[in-house]
Amino acid sequence: MSVEKLQRYREQMRTELDKVVDFWQKYSHDTQYGGFFTCIGKDGKIYDELKYVWLQGRQVWMYCRLYRTMERFNKPEILEAAKSGGAFLRRFARIPNSGSPWKCAFCLTRDGKALKVQRTIFSECFYVMAMDELARVTGDKDMQAEAAQMMDQLVHWVRVDPSGLGKPQLSGDTPVCSMAVPMMLLCLVQQLTEARSGEEVDKYREVGGWCVKQILQHLQRGGTAILESVSSEGKELPGCEGRLQNPGHALEAGWFLLQYGLENGDQELQRTAVDKFMEIPFLTGWDKEHGGLLYFLDVDGYCPTQLEWSMKLWWPHCEALIAYLMAYSHTKEPALLDRFSQVYDYTFSHFSDAENGEWFGYLTQQGKVTLDFKGGPFKGENVNRLEKGLVRNHDRHK
Amino acid sequence: MSVEKLQRYREQMRTELDKVVDFWQKYSHDTQYGGFFTCIGKDGKIYDELKYVWLQGRQVWMYCRLYRTMERFNKPEILEAAKSGGAFLRRFARIPNSGSPWKCAFCLTRDGKALKVQRTIFSECFYVMAMDELARVTGDKDMQAEAAQMMDQLVHWVRVDPSGLGKPQLSGDTPVCSMAVPMMLLCLVQQLTEARSGEEVDKYREVGGWCVKQILQHLQRGGTAILESVSSEGKELPGCEGRLQNPGHALEAGWFLLQYGLENGDQELQRTAVDKFMEIPFLTGWDKEHGGLLYFLDVDGYCPTQLEWSMKLWWPHCEALIAYLMAYSHTKEPALLDRFSQVYDYTFSHFSDAENGEWFGYLTQQGKVTLDFKGGPFKGENVNRLEKGLVRNHDRHK
Repeated sequence: MSVEKLQRYREQMRTELDKVVDFWQKYSHDTQYGGFFTCIGKDGKIYDELKYVWLQGRQVWMYCRLYRTMERFNKPEILEAAKSGGAFLRRFARIPNSGSPWKCAFCLTRDGKALKVQRTIFSECFYVMAMDELARVTGDKDMQAEAAQMMDQLVHWVRVDPSGLGKPQLSGDTPVCSMAVPMMLLCLVQQLTEARSGEEVDKYREVGGWCVKQILQHLQRGGTAILESVSSEGKELPGCEGRLQNPGHALEAGWFLLQYGLENGDQELQRTAVDKFMEIPFLTGWDKEHGGLLYFLDVDGYCPTQLEWSMKLWWPHCEALIAYLMAYSHTKEPALLDRFSQVYDYTFSHFSDAENGEWFGYLTQQGKVTLDFKGGPFKGENVNRLEKGLVRNHDRHK
Repeated sequence: MSVEKLQRYREQMRTELDKVVDFWQKYSHDTQYGGFFTCIGKDGKIYDELKYVWLQGRQVWMYCRLYRTMERFNKPEILEAAKSGGAFLRRFARIPNSGSPWKCAFCLTRDGKALKVQRTIFSECFYVMAMDELARVTGDKDMQAEAAQMMDQLVHWVRVDPSGLGKPQLSGDTPVCSMAVPMMLLCLVQQLTEARSGEEVDKYREVGGWCVKQILQHLQRGGTAILESVSSEGKELPGCEGRLQNPGHALEAGWFLLQYGLENGDQELQRTAVDKFMEIPFLTGWDKEHGGLLYFLDVDGYCPTQLEWSMKLWWPHCEALIAYLMAYSHTKEPALLDRFSQVYDYTFSHFSDAENGEWFGYLTQQGKVTLDFKGGPFKGENVNRLEKGLVRNHDRHK
């Protein structure tokens, strides 16, 4: 690939990022109650005032990370918006919970009343991301301590006792390991340890090592498949749940593992990340007829039971772009740049909205926009995933 | 429409029903553990051994109703299969639950261990349907009493105190009335009161009247829209939730209301059922470009946030067929027969599988099969909904 083409990609991504940040600054800030609107239509109109906690946390993180690491975003209005979002989160996201005093809501009303709570760890994870990154730009030690305390709670739920999450114990329950959990924890470990040292960091490093081992258990069938859920002994589970593949998650795990392998000088892990976690999902998940990455697949070729299995979502494409670019920048293998280029062309021609800025999130298998909002219950700043990776790549190379 | 065309429809439905019943008899019976497999591929192969409780209950109900009301299904093997399914349900569906001893699981392992439980009323509703209908064909009074006891529990959850369902109380909670709840209860009232009299029946009739009032609250905006969720005062709710329309549910409510109106000689209710609950969802929900009924719509034209909003599902089409045929058979208005015919042509040409029997359940907006299994977590005998209506029409006219 020519240097010119790479330069063009870089320019386009830069322009796209500016448009995305503009979009959220312009439409999402709630100047009356604080925090961010998350349900935003294609042209910026708020179609629901609910505030989804994942996206509050992600937006705080994104603003802080942009502010802290990229000069053109080092502007007071970005910092102020991040602080406002952080204050809203701190004040409202945590809810009274008999089992675990640190449980976070999934969804809040505009004025911060809890409306829904999930029996998973993810709202809390985005809370940690937001608080730690905000503490880094503001120097607020209380906030950093709060992130650490929440992290302890998360590790307790995942490794010791999940009962505080509120799921009832049932007779048919067998412990299931979902790849999303160690992936997300590993991401937090990388957040909490970055450029720090000391006892706390050593504790997190141990957690990080555990997460990597857990993620590697999802490489199954003699290294030919990455399965989303496995047993606690690292074996394949029966039925649909055991056969489920999520190419976007596998690619995301791929770049988390590569990053960890690079930080720890683990060359074998680096190779596994690239050859398995980045290659297998492309071979199985890329839609040869219509282009783009499918959302879910069954490893034995049965039809998944998720109604949206054949749709093309923005985020797996972001994960793929980050993964292939990161892998190429370390290995310089041209095949990885080709993968990047193939995903790039599909992504930027299908998800980007030239008219109103930001990205669409949901396409049919054939590539037609089928949900046209820019923000919804699970979609915030489109490029926060992309940026998370690119900003990290950027950090690494500056 | 010609009598010949109606005769042809009738013949085709009869053939289709035979093929469907054959399919489930052939592939779904678990002779080892009892009960029915519910995850069945396009050609009859079991792709997951989990047993979904809604579908266990529906299949028991369907077999019994066919056995009891249609001569060609009055066969010992159908009764035996129903009894086996009923025994499995009785033994395994109910799970220990601190708040409510009668809570049912949503999903069981092959050998009956509880795997998932929903914080809603629907597993319990299908349990009542199954037990009551099975009691009718077997004469088992204990079973009938069990259905009645579960019904009391359901009415308590819905009208007195929902806390036994296990949802945590949150600060932003405002009571939301979902149309599915009174619809389902009204269906149970009709099941439990059919051809019976006495004190128990009077009690249910009061519940039925309450359900009708509740359902009518979903007719909003001066009688121009049917909204899936309203406030407990019967007012429109803010945001996406308040604007959500589910044409299949509105049509289903339509024939429940019509049936109730006919049973009670309430002509105004009959007209509302037809002119509002059957007409509005067609005008808003029929896809003029591709044909078929859309799954979800936003009354103000925003994009729904459900990823599957534009898909075509088998069950709203079944509800539409039942509704229009029932409405036509009582009013003799030709326009209703035209509606029936239009839905019929789309339904039988898109969902029916000539090769392996049974129906596909899930199409893209363009009408292409996108999930090709015959049974899944929410889809059992395709025509159980259709049959429920047709069998009831049949009962009424025999």
